[in-house]
Amino acid sequence: MTTMEEMGAKAKVASRQLANAGEKKNEALKAIADALKANSDKIIAANAVDLENGKANQLSASLLDRLMLNEKRIDGIAQGVLEVAALPDPIGTVISGSTRPNGLKITKVRVPMGVIGIIFEARPNVTADAAVLCLKSGNAVILRGGKEAINSNKCIADIMRDAVESVGLDKNCIQLIEDTSRRSSTELMELTQYLDVLIPRGGKGLIRAVVENAKVPVIETGAGNCHVYVDEFADIDMAAEIIYNAKTSRPSVCNAIETILVHEKIAEKALPVIKARLDEKNVELRGCEKTIAILGESVVPADESDWETEYGDYILAVKVVDSFDSAVEHITKYSTGHSECIITENLKNARRFTECIDAAAVYVNASTRFTDGGMFGLGAEIGISTQKLHARGPMGLNELTSMKFIIEGDGQVRI
Amino acid sequence: MTTMEEMGAKAKVASRQLANAGEKKNEALKAIADALKANSDKIIAANAVDLENGKANQLSASLLDRLMLNEKRIDGIAQGVLEVAALPDPIGTVISGSTRPNGLKITKVRVPMGVIGIIFEARPNVTADAAVLCLKSGNAVILRGGKEAINSNKCIADIMRDAVESVGLDKNCIQLIEDTSRRSSTELMELTQYLDVLIPRGGKGLIRAVVENAKVPVIETGAGNCHVYVDEFADIDMAAEIIYNAKTSRPSVCNAIETILVHEKIAEKALPVIKARLDEKNVELRGCEKTIAILGESVVPADESDWETEYGDYILAVKVVDSFDSAVEHITKYSTGHSECIITENLKNARRFTECIDAAAVYVNASTRFTDGGMFGLGAEIGISTQKLHARGPMGLNELTSMKFIIEGDGQVRI
Repeated sequence: MTTMEEMGAKAKVASRQLANAGEKKNEALKAIADALKANSDKIIAANAVDLENGKANQLSASLLDRLMLNEKRIDGIAQGVLEVAALPDPIGTVISGSTRPNGLKITKVRVPMGVIGIIFEARPNVTADAAVLCLKSGNAVILRGGKEAINSNKCIADIMRDAVESVGLDKNCIQLIEDTSRRSSTELMELTQYLDVLIPRGGKGLIRAVVENAKVPVIETGAGNCHVYVDEFADIDMAAEIIYNAKTSRPSVCNAIETILVHEKIAEKALPVIKARLDEKNVELRGCEKTIAILGESVVPADESDWETEYGDYILAVKVVDSFDSAVEHITKYSTGHSECIITENLKNARRFTECIDAAAVYVNASTRFTDGGMFGLGAEIGISTQKLHARGPMGLNELTSMKFIIEGDGQVRI
Repeated sequence: MTTMEEMGAKAKVASRQLANAGEKKNEALKAIADALKANSDKIIAANAVDLENGKANQLSASLLDRLMLNEKRIDGIAQGVLEVAALPDPIGTVISGSTRPNGLKITKVRVPMGVIGIIFEARPNVTADAAVLCLKSGNAVILRGGKEAINSNKCIADIMRDAVESVGLDKNCIQLIEDTSRRSSTELMELTQYLDVLIPRGGKGLIRAVVENAKVPVIETGAGNCHVYVDEFADIDMAAEIIYNAKTSRPSVCNAIETILVHEKIAEKALPVIKARLDEKNVELRGCEKTIAILGESVVPADESDWETEYGDYILAVKVVDSFDSAVEHITKYSTGHSECIITENLKNARRFTECIDAAAVYVNASTRFTDGGMFGLGAEIGISTQKLHARGPMGLNELTSMKFIIEGDGQVRI
């Protein structure tokens, strides 16, 4: 088996070719899309082995569903690849530039990162999604997926590598680590000589482990303990619609909300309207004392842990706050810095909220569910960064790039 | 003594006030400049203790010189603070924005990082330089300087804290760790709950230690094994001037060159001209066999280690290469990705060089010594990043910031 060092070295070599590959990259993407569709039988057969193993290992129904690939899902993946091909190429974009008084022309140009590592869990579609975003942005990628999907991942990676090679590019711009033991992910996290950045995609545990143990630069993605604050000047119907959408349209994702904060001056009117809407989806409410006083005993009493929890489910924590400042304070204490929202018709409070709240996405009168690369118009997304270094919020192709300065002179020296 | 956790918590609180402090930040900077000048006697007295300890511990003359503060140097520091005050405030700048088809207005705005940690070595001027750049960019800073300068650092930090407080800002936006043991730097590297980024400033050993051990995000600065490649189409006099400048104007800094590569078709003509210029400063040459064949026995034979070494001294490695590609290959193998230069009159080679070389700053016909925030027109510099994540090359105020998305709607929900 290839060692991690060897994979790193091969990726580095491939990344150099890819850095200036121009239109060849799109040819490769089209070849990948075609090959995935042409080989869907093979992928489904490999996936069947994973599903069988998953059942034998008693994976939950929802995990098995995420693992499962069929003709339709493979078509969806291939379609996604073509959409990435259609996006503008970020590489070579001039970010800024100037001519210095001494005549030096300085240009800041977008270039690839080089080699990107992706550690992810059970979804085999990430193998294709992540690889093509890296390829489009001129980066070689080393993929390390979970053991549950190893057969599907291997099959998809092999198909993509052959497709890349068929257009004359180095197939090592896409590599999959076949060893799914803990050792291989540790080695990847320590591959400082070759890896320019490592992006974990998956649950809290995985992300924490990578952030704590990696020696290579990491982009943290993920956790979303998101809030909606219903201001005293809120439009109550709008509040109910936004809360309903942000909680129930897809409760398992990171941009869904977990807690609402309601100003006490509006709570008596607003809470019953909000509850009525959430009842349509049988959302369990866990509330503070004031909430229970207004909505009655159907509300489960909330404790400290409720303010901290990303339920990912049809559960919503509710707290009545005595002021705008209390709402900001609560959010500042419990937010994971993902997406936060105020519902208000008051301009001053809207402005203060966007200034005070320290999160990747701060909303006024809209659902937090919009925090997404596609919804923001980035065209594609490799994840949502919740750190402040390099990228924050939805990461598109630009966030997979670095830059370099090109300085052109005619003999200038520094005095 | 305050624990690291407490310092982190205080910094976080201070950072929130600072994030929207606007013009108050410049008032604080002016107060700092005044206070440093008004208290120069105090600083010089504290510095004298450090110098005495340094002598007792047999620090080298050059280290003692870096440690030393006098009236003139303190004036220089204060002047630097005023220059930072005069720079435009990066915070609140709109980076980009759009209106989505559903009417959502999305704006990407520059915001502070939050809390920045700086680990540095013996120079006490860094205490002021780093603190004011962080303050101007709206960040609270936790400084951890070397033990050699601890008395000077404490004195400067106290003066700055009082000045900050005098204009009504939280003095904890500047904090100095007084414990200079290894334990305190380890604790700082693990302060994930409070630290948004950690920047090491100093020698190779320090930077390596921080990169390998930190659990918080790090910006790597520093090492520069820089090259000049003299192409077969070079203007020989220009080559000699640029090499002379890049090697001898300040050999100890990271943007000075360590190796030159000379195309064999021009080597016989060019090398004697280059050597004659370098002889003026008695630069020791370490060359390959072909170099020695041309320049004679005054050239020390180079071995593998010479290609890897950042001399930081009046020493230059010289290699004759048989092609453009060999030059690129050598640079790709040994470069630290800092600054690389080609001397050529050939447009195609200039273009290929800027495309192929993977470094923060790629030069055509100019001295690598220009890689510097001031020279690039950034106004100030916290260091030179040699990593690809977040910042690459000279880091000015913008590189000390993050961004957030502000999304304004009138009730939009995601379908």
